[in-house]
Parts: sequence; structure tokens; C-alpha cells
Amino acid sequence: MFSEDLLAERTSNMGSSAIREILKVVSKPGVVSLAGGLPAPEAFPIELIRELTNIVLDKYPSQALQYGTTEGFMPLREELAKYLAKAGVPSNPESINITSGSQGALDSLGKILISEGDKIAVEAPTYLGAIQAFNPYGPEYMQMETDDNGLIPESLQEVLKNHSIKFIYLVPTFQNPTGRTLPLERRKKIAEIIKEYNVLLVEDDPYSALRFRGEAVPSIRSLAPDHVLYTSTFSKTFAPGLRIGYYVAPPLIRKWLVLAKQGVDLNTSTFNQAISAEYLAGGHIYRHIPEIVKLYQPRQEAMQEAMEKHFPDSITWTKPEGGMFIWASGPKGLDITPIYNEAIEKNVAFVPGRYFYTKEGDGLETMRLNFTMKGEQIIRDAIKTLGEVIKKNL
Amino acid sequence: MFSEDLLAERTSNMGSSAIREILKVVSKPGVVSLAGGLPAPEAFPIELIRELTNIVLDKYPSQALQYGTTEGFMPLREELAKYLAKAGVPSNPESINITSGSQGALDSLGKILISEGDKIAVEAPTYLGAIQAFNPYGPEYMQMETDDNGLIPESLQEVLKNHSIKFIYLVPTFQNPTGRTLPLERRKKIAEIIKEYNVLLVEDDPYSALRFRGEAVPSIRSLAPDHVLYTSTFSKTFAPGLRIGYYVAPPLIRKWLVLAKQGVDLNTSTFNQAISAEYLAGGHIYRHIPEIVKLYQPRQEAMQEAMEKHFPDSITWTKPEGGMFIWASGPKGLDITPIYNEAIEKNVAFVPGRYFYTKEGDGLETMRLNFTMKGEQIIRDAIKTLGEVIKKNL
Repeated sequence: MFSEDLLAERTSNMGSSAIREILKVVSKPGVVSLAGGLPAPEAFPIELIRELTNIVLDKYPSQALQYGTTEGFMPLREELAKYLAKAGVPSNPESINITSGSQGALDSLGKILISEGDKIAVEAPTYLGAIQAFNPYGPEYMQMETDDNGLIPESLQEVLKNHSIKFIYLVPTFQNPTGRTLPLERRKKIAEIIKEYNVLLVEDDPYSALRFRGEAVPSIRSLAPDHVLYTSTFSKTFAPGLRIGYYVAPPLIRKWLVLAKQGVDLNTSTFNQAISAEYLAGGHIYRHIPEIVKLYQPRQEAMQEAMEKHFPDSITWTKPEGGMFIWASGPKGLDITPIYNEAIEKNVAFVPGRYFYTKEGDGLETMRLNFTMKGEQIIRDAIKTLGEVIKKNL
Repeated sequence: MFSEDLLAERTSNMGSSAIREILKVVSKPGVVSLAGGLPAPEAFPIELIRELTNIVLDKYPSQALQYGTTEGFMPLREELAKYLAKAGVPSNPESINITSGSQGALDSLGKILISEGDKIAVEAPTYLGAIQAFNPYGPEYMQMETDDNGLIPESLQEVLKNHSIKFIYLVPTFQNPTGRTLPLERRKKIAEIIKEYNVLLVEDDPYSALRFRGEAVPSIRSLAPDHVLYTSTFSKTFAPGLRIGYYVAPPLIRKWLVLAKQGVDLNTSTFNQAISAEYLAGGHIYRHIPEIVKLYQPRQEAMQEAMEKHFPDSITWTKPEGGMFIWASGPKGLDITPIYNEAIEKNVAFVPGRYFYTKEGDGLETMRLNFTMKGEQIIRDAIKTLGEVIKKNL
């Protein structure tokens, strides 16, 4: 009846996600998928959620079941301000707004900031969900170089010197897809650079609470609060099914993000916001995160040990101190595609790393491996199989 | 730090909502507000939600707390297909997608269909939330004429004859703001017209289940399924705090709406979708809607009776058979603003109707009155006060 002619021009930027297609393929029975990016369902505090729901329905049912303000449920914003203070992220209840997952913040950000052709600086590789949120608004991506310590500050400076950049998008801690963390020294340099150029940096931080070892690193927001929008989520530390994210932003950006969100969903589920508020207020988050870490850490260690044992020397990989992903790279010139295809035949799946680059042809030699969804022995076996496939194809 | 120069061009279409400002003013203590558009909190089935939450956490906790597909939680889509069949809306589980409130459908629709300057046909007056969803994408609105029976089909035909229209947006039953319902004969004519012009019609239907008296009217979708996107919500029949909406759409539109939503929020809260699925599966909705009607009907009757008693003859108003609003109009040439201001001083609030028109200067003589949020006696007293203010200002 209707043809594609009906569609707005911007849909030409909105093609189907390749990863989505991959995840469909690998969800077939028998495949051990290291491709996903989901939290382990064993980590969901089911009985606690039952208890918190009861508290919410006793304490403020009329509010929790009603429409709420676009900015968010105030008891949650108040609890978040306390939580973020402990996590080293300066904020106050008024500067925190609630979103429908942190994806909601990224979409609204694209809507209020990106005019067709505007330039955004991103890491190479970067988080795919952000690209999907920004794409409909038609930006051009400027890739910045990274190494094992994440973004190289000089690359950021170079990009800012030569281009007019709308904002910088970064996942500085346990990055998706690489697991890399930007050290303090680099954060300080980056903070100075963004102040110097008076440019907005979006600090997307879903994973920093999932630290298995090592020392926490201060947020970039703590080093340049006027220039950083900090966003995070309860999806990795509580339950993604609640779709609760949040951000702390400079006043002008915040005002416009609220106006944008009003048109998108009026407000995020008040019910789920109230449950999340109780999760913080009761101190449950401080007891539950160690439980998640206890589950993920041995999985990550099992994966790393198996990689050391079964992967050939020409493959290198990150050794993240937390998060959900390990990133492996073959020698330059390698195309991982045949390895991916043969691995799938052998019932092991991962995501080819090229999908996380905004420039076509980059990252052909890389792969993202998730360690949160399977137990240690399954991970060891899958990595052994993968190592054999890699050796055969090198 | 940052100036408005940073913002995307589209923000010039996104000014703050005047109604939002009004609702802030009227929320001051002592004001009896007939301005809002919220369901009565007494209508929330608190204990049922507690029960359904327990069922969800017993039955499928891993699924309900995890990320889900962008299309929606399949048990909910299956239950909705059965529910919609009874309500006279043809669908199947695959053609139904879940959104974060029906606002989510409207935003994605704007994103995939509207290029800057595209024309959209809307009723005069129309639902403000739709305008807020569409505005960032830069459409031009073509107002269609209405009377006591809603949209005048000839006005639609006229607009389609003279303009290339991207889509038509309609609230055909118990419209917000007027409470008007389009009779079957007009629906048939409209269905023929949209088939003739091969144009998409968006049928926004949040209120039809809230019928106090009279006969249900078939959905426009039932008369032209290939040309109608039907959207509705649980906000008026269950609880708005869950933010669960849904739509049934032709395949091409549906495919692109899913792609758009993926960038906006990945998926709507699986937890709340599962609770809503159980609300339908247990047949609770069929028992609960009559409870809501039992609460709203006497409020609406009290308002209507008080208007008959206290409003001067020169004011006319709609007599809706359901929904949440009554629409009153003064003689042409009247400006309701001084009446609004004096009413606020006397602690009675409503929404001046002009905000529901896309053309500046239209509807100056109109007002929207909500009857769901206050008990009968409070409504009677407020209408008496308002009648006195109107008489004084005529």
C-alpha cells in the first residue's frame, strides 16, 4: 500500500542494526553466544524487587502509578545525588534527570544538539547504541584514536583543533566494546582540553560500578563539571527490564533535554523509578553490586585464562578490571569474518569488532567477547573452540 | 558556559509547553483544578498490581527483568490481539508493537515520516501531546474543521485535494480536548477518503474504553486496516505510571517504527509489559474498567448538570458519552483569557482552549474542563464559581 517514498529523509541514516541481525542468528539453540551484551539473569535480585514493589505500593501508590514530571521522580533524584556523591560524581537532585534507560538520554541529546552534518567526536571503536541514537539526526562522526588505555588525548586535541565539534562521546570506564578504562592522568588531560575548547563531553558510564579489582578512577565530570554530561543506568547494577537511566548535565543542556523527552515519552515509568529509589534508599545497591561482581569476576578470569591457553600469540586482548567485555585483536590485515563464520558453525558466537567503528573498513581484525552470560566451564570450552578456529585461519 | 548557539536548528520548533506552565500555576494549594488530564488515582488497582507483580516475578522473572525485543514482550502482544479483537480493532500479535506510552508511538512516527516542512492534517482543536511529539521534526500543520460530531469529512477531502499530506492525525473517540466522538457514518466516509487518496491515518484511541453510556463505535482501523495506524495505551484503563502504550500498524510503517524506537529506548520496560500482560490474561481489565466508569460517570454528570444550572445561555458545551473532558465554547469574538485569570483568582482552573489549535488566534473563546480528578461536590462548586466569573465577563 505504502512505499518507502513515504518515509522521511532521515530514515536513510537509520538502517537496521547489523548486530541485531547477528544476535538473531546466534540465538539459535546449541550456540554458545559470547556475542550478547546482557547482564546475567542470575544477577537479578528477584525477591528484593518483590519486597521493594510492596514498599512502593504501601508508601506512595498514587504517585508511583500516576504520570510524573518529565524530570523524574524526586525521591529517586535525591537518592541518586547521594549515591553519585559516593561514586565521585558531583551533582544535586535538581541537576539529575531520569531517562528511559541511558539510551533515552542519548536520543534526546541527539535531538537537541545535532543538525544534519554536525560533527561528533567518538572513540574508535565506540558504543553502537550511541551511534544508533545519534544517526537519525544525521551527524558526521570524527573517529579519535585509542590504545590500551582508551582515548589518546592528543587525538582528541587534534580533532578539536581541526573541526567544529558539537560534542564528544566517550565511555571512559570498562568501555563497550573494549573493556578499556581511561587512567586518571588522561582524564585530567581530557578535562583540560574540553575546558580549553569549551566543548561538551558526554561521559557514558554504565559499567564503572562493576569493578572486580584495582582502584576506582574519578569521573571526568568530577574534573570538568561544567563541560560534562554524565549518564548512567540501573541496567547493569539492578535490572535492565525496569529501563531506568539518568544523567547529570549542565543547566542549558538539561533544560532542553527535558523539553525533548516530554515529546518522546512524557516521563519514565514512575513505578520503576520508585522501585529504584527504594533500592538506593534501603542501601540494597551496596550489598547487591558485590553479588554481581562475585558472579562476573570468575567468568572474566576463566575467559582470560582460557585465552592465554588457547589463543595464538598473534592475537592480543584487553585485561579489563571490570565490566562485561574483553576485546581481542589479530594482526593488522586479518579479516575476522571467516573466523566468525567457522566459529558459528562450531556453535560459538561473538561480535566481529568492525561493527563498533563508524568508519567502514576499520577494525576488521577485532572481536568483542562477552563474559557475563555463561558459566566458567562453558566459557572455557567456547574459548578453546574459538582458539582452534583462529589458529586454523591464521 | 554553553550558549543557545550550541543547539540544533530543530530546537526552534520545540518551545516550552504553555500547558505545562499552566499546570504548574494551578498546582498551588487551594486551587480546584479542572485543568489537568490525569486519571483519578482512586481508580488505580493497587492491590491488583501487587498481585500481578507477584505473578510476574514467579512466572517469568528472568524475562521480565531482562532487556527485551524492541517490538515488545510477546505474551503482552498476544493478549492485546485478543483484547483488540473484542474491541473491534483487527490485529494479530505480530502487527502489534509496544511503546513507552502512546507518546512513544507518536514520537517514532514523527521521526520516520516527517521531513522538515512536510504537511500533517490535524483536527482543530487537536491533542497537544501529538503536536509536541511531531514538532521537533518540523512539520507544517493543516487544520481540518470539526463540529459537534468531530472531524467534518469534507474538510479532510478538501485538505487532501489541495495538499500533499504525510499523514492524518485523529482522536476519533472522546477526543482530547473536546470529548467528541466521530459517528459511524463519518468514519465510513473518512475510511473511503483515505483509501481513495492512499494516505496514512493515525487513529489515537486512549479513551474509547471509558464509555459511560451509548453504543460503541467501530474503530476507523476496522474500516480501512491497510491505511490506519491504531494506537492506544494502558494509561487510562490501568495505570499511567507503567508507561505502556501500543500500536497496530501496516507492515512498512511498523518496520520503521521499530528501527526508530531501538535508538530511542531499546525497549519498553519488560517488567511493566509483563504486569500488563497478566492484567489482560487474568481478565482483570474487563472487571476493572467498569470500576473506573463507575467513578467517572457521576463526575461527568455532576459537571454537566452544574453547567446547565450556572453557565449563561451564550456558552455551549459538548455532552460526551465517556472519556475525561468537556469542551465549552463562548460566542465567536469572546476571549476567554480574562475569565481564566479571574477564575484562577477565585481558585478554579481550566485550560484555555486556544492551546489545542495549531493556528495562532483560533479557539480564543473555548475552554477544556476535566472531570476525572475531583469528586462531584467539588466539581459542582467549581462550576458554580466559574459560571459566576463567566457571567461577569460576558
